[in-house]
Amino acid sequence: MNKVEICFTPELYRFYHQKDAIVVIADILRATSAIVTAFENGVEKLIPVATLEEAMNCKNKGLLLAAERNGVVLDFADFGNSPFNFTRERIAGKTIAYSTTNGTNAIQMAKDSYRVVIGAFINLSAIANWLMDQKRDVLIFCSGWKGKFNLEDSLFAGALAEQLLESTHFHTDCDSVQASLDLWSLAKTDLLAYIEKAAHRHRLKKLGLDDILEYCHTINTTDKIPVLKDGFLVELSTFTKVF
Amino acid sequence: MNKVEICFTPELYRFYHQKDAIVVIADILRATSAIVTAFENGVEKLIPVATLEEAMNCKNKGLLLAAERNGVVLDFADFGNSPFNFTRERIAGKTIAYSTTNGTNAIQMAKDSYRVVIGAFINLSAIANWLMDQKRDVLIFCSGWKGKFNLEDSLFAGALAEQLLESTHFHTDCDSVQASLDLWSLAKTDLLAYIEKAAHRHRLKKLGLDDILEYCHTINTTDKIPVLKDGFLVELSTFTKVF
Repeated sequence: MNKVEICFTPELYRFYHQKDAIVVIADILRATSAIVTAFENGVEKLIPVATLEEAMNCKNKGLLLAAERNGVVLDFADFGNSPFNFTRERIAGKTIAYSTTNGTNAIQMAKDSYRVVIGAFINLSAIANWLMDQKRDVLIFCSGWKGKFNLEDSLFAGALAEQLLESTHFHTDCDSVQASLDLWSLAKTDLLAYIEKAAHRHRLKKLGLDDILEYCHTINTTDKIPVLKDGFLVELSTFTKVF
Repeated sequence: MNKVEICFTPELYRFYHQKDAIVVIADILRATSAIVTAFENGVEKLIPVATLEEAMNCKNKGLLLAAERNGVVLDFADFGNSPFNFTRERIAGKTIAYSTTNGTNAIQMAKDSYRVVIGAFINLSAIANWLMDQKRDVLIFCSGWKGKFNLEDSLFAGALAEQLLESTHFHTDCDSVQASLDLWSLAKTDLLAYIEKAAHRHRLKKLGLDDILEYCHTINTTDKIPVLKDGFLVELSTFTKVF
């Protein structure tokens, strides 16, 4: 039996870090939904960058750069954080750099784990099914909002934990898992209605960036699983072929 | 209108700190339930101490010392963290020092706020009614377990937030409040059954310390509100008389 735990924000990560675990990063609005979309649309590699300096360096090296802070596209970036930016025409076969307020920071923090994968509602069951084959402990790592707990990542965590705990491979003694399972049980019959409670949903609305809301909360539209390898994100099938 | 927020663990406190707010500390199993009990049973003053060194110093000065770590009474303490230790015979009219794994640390962290009060299920409505008269922002500060989120403190936070938000004085844009309200809505019809999910409930059971479970989850058995004044906890009615 393997353990499943949920870390609600990067500030709590050190209490959950376990080098032998697989870490699933979640930043539903919008980073991890966008990253999964990028692989669905054929991006070859994605470089997650945590700082603005690194982002600027990538841009100066001629890479396509997706970057935002607080929901707003950075001046020197090619485009921002909306999954709708990551179109096949723009990114297929390319390497792009990507920096966001919360999500890419979480990826950097978890990089020393056994494996880091990118989760979203859009690849929920693909992630769950893959995890069930791995025989490893799982940590679902919510990116939160500037250090705080957020609803949308926790709901995803609850949805994923539910699938894992329905199998006989996993158990939990983690209060964050219990809470997330219960929140998910309340939300799942009408996720979009529930997400009206989330503060970030209203931040995005004010910025006119909430067109992706339904997209980011639609379950299982892709089976692509981005995975971290040597500092890059690649698609899992590439990873297992190449390494 | 005033704001209500919930901080799930001391590790997140810096994101919620607001010097003009009233902070309600919660450590349901068992520190804040015990502290409220101490005032119900007539303790005069309580000195919250965060470190073992401070606890030892207080003991050496001849104070009665209640102290535990990880649920276990410290060797040099007079008694531990169970509310049942704080009997009228033992503590009425006395000043005692008190140190615990999580709760007293949270008290120290919040001491620069406008006011720090001690909340538990046993004084829930007393706290809520007092807060409604204060016209101040409120932060409910869960002590958590060694930095992690825990269920019992979050449920208390949800119960208190529910009472505040039912009045017209308070609003919230805090995802932790939304989550706690929903968890509380699931738990409140049978709080003791719900709390079976909590990891700390099982830690206490293993240690044979779960005799206080029902007591700590019984609502409104006292109207005493411990409040921090010059580093000591005193009862609110004393506070308003003296200062």
